[in-house]
Amino acid sequence: MPAQIIPVDDPADPRLAPYRDIRERDLVGRQGRFIAEGKVVLNVLLRQSPFETESLLLLENRLAGVDELIEAAPDGVPAYVCPAAVLDAVAGFHVHRGILALGRRSAARELDAALEALPANALVIVLAGLANHDNIGAIFRNAAAFEADLVVLDETAGDPLYRKAIRVSVGAALKVPFVRAGAVATITERLAAHDFDCLALSPSGGTSVGAYRPGRRRALFFGSEGPGLPEPVMRSMRTIRIPMSERFDSLNVAAASAIALHRLWHGADAAGSAD
Amino acid sequence: MPAQIIPVDDPADPRLAPYRDIRERDLVGRQGRFIAEGKVVLNVLLRQSPFETESLLLLENRLAGVDELIEAAPDGVPAYVCPAAVLDAVAGFHVHRGILALGRRSAARELDAALEALPANALVIVLAGLANHDNIGAIFRNAAAFEADLVVLDETAGDPLYRKAIRVSVGAALKVPFVRAGAVATITERLAAHDFDCLALSPSGGTSVGAYRPGRRRALFFGSEGPGLPEPVMRSMRTIRIPMSERFDSLNVAAASAIALHRLWHGADAAGSAD
Repeated sequence: MPAQIIPVDDPADPRLAPYRDIRERDLVGRQGRFIAEGKVVLNVLLRQSPFETESLLLLENRLAGVDELIEAAPDGVPAYVCPAAVLDAVAGFHVHRGILALGRRSAARELDAALEALPANALVIVLAGLANHDNIGAIFRNAAAFEADLVVLDETAGDPLYRKAIRVSVGAALKVPFVRAGAVATITERLAAHDFDCLALSPSGGTSVGAYRPGRRRALFFGSEGPGLPEPVMRSMRTIRIPMSERFDSLNVAAASAIALHRLWHGADAAGSAD
Repeated sequence: MPAQIIPVDDPADPRLAPYRDIRERDLVGRQGRFIAEGKVVLNVLLRQSPFETESLLLLENRLAGVDELIEAAPDGVPAYVCPAAVLDAVAGFHVHRGILALGRRSAARELDAALEALPANALVIVLAGLANHDNIGAIFRNAAAFEADLVVLDETAGDPLYRKAIRVSVGAALKVPFVRAGAVATITERLAAHDFDCLALSPSGGTSVGAYRPGRRRALFFGSEGPGLPEPVMRSMRTIRIPMSERFDSLNVAAASAIALHRLWHGADAAGSAD
């Protein structure tokens, strides 16, 4: 079997150090690494992700059900297997699922290089100031479902490889390519230079999302949860609105992204007309 | 001012009893009452909801910012005002927002009576076995944004008036009418009797959501987070799918509801064509 199964019985075993005090380490970061959890997410990590897996950590009573993961792991990657008491002692809380992996972040890419490589009908998402990891995870999940080619994060957006963002994304944060860039104005400028139609989603947007006809490369901007996109950004690009009730004009940003990506997906027209 | 401001300095004051040990009481229930939190939600409760407000509980340092709420409350409703230490002692944890209300549930309605009262183009949501309160709250939020007329809960679905569901819904759970009915088969039968086109949202659905033309009363069924709707239910009605990537065919049920309601909303066509 590709992964190498290694029983561990001592919570102090230094090989488990990267899994120690999981929640506390969420806050301070992991020196270029991230934690993925659960069978579905690990399947994405091992089969559909560009990120390297450094190790697995499995509850011994889960081992029987994860043959596929063991098989999919690169040759020789250690799969540490331990009893619940050891896992809980290492992690610092009761790890319910008992299926964990440690992944390694890739080297940062340049925005221009990333944009250069995209197809002519590319769909890009820009997250500007979006900080909530539930929302980031949910948007990545929607991005994967509607085949967005790239997510661009401005300097103030949250981290897609934060543990909870990965979990909420059901692994999509490990699959949909993303790049961290600078200020949103710079991102807008680079997208325009690469022939992207920049679109800001806004309740007061000028074009209804159903009326927009995606003709070429398009980039969909989402702002932070409260204030949304800054005014100068909105003024610099076309604005798109999702028509909704005047008596309750409030959609969560993840829900808005689902609707907008559904509408802007290049597969939508073909798929929508097939009945 | 309509609400009656009553300073309280003693955490043991019996008038604050309904707010005691908030989290523990979430689990055991509140004898026909519910807790609403935050300015936005309380605005919905006081201005757009059929539910009665029994009292408000406000942090004294928040009082200056909630004139509108005090004004909107029914005449004589007590608004207890206390320092943070008292509020935290009563609630049993640190109440960050400091704006709470106690509402009273309405008497249960009959499904038939509720359906009878709906308009000819009514849009109804059926939640069958959906248990997660985040998802229930998110679906209510989407239901309000796209003007669903009624949410029907089967006997196994979660409670829209659970504290977290109300919070996630941004108050929509207090605004969109809902009715608790029996088994999903019975609900389906009653909807059909009231001339509803019953639609099951499913990844393997026969009709693309963009191709469905809402012509009359329609009811959109959502199943539980894992297994979805039971097979017999699916076979008994038209199935609708949201086209998406074959490589990542996984949408959260709340995201799916956003897309489906956006598409099925009777205001969507008119609003969508206005550019």
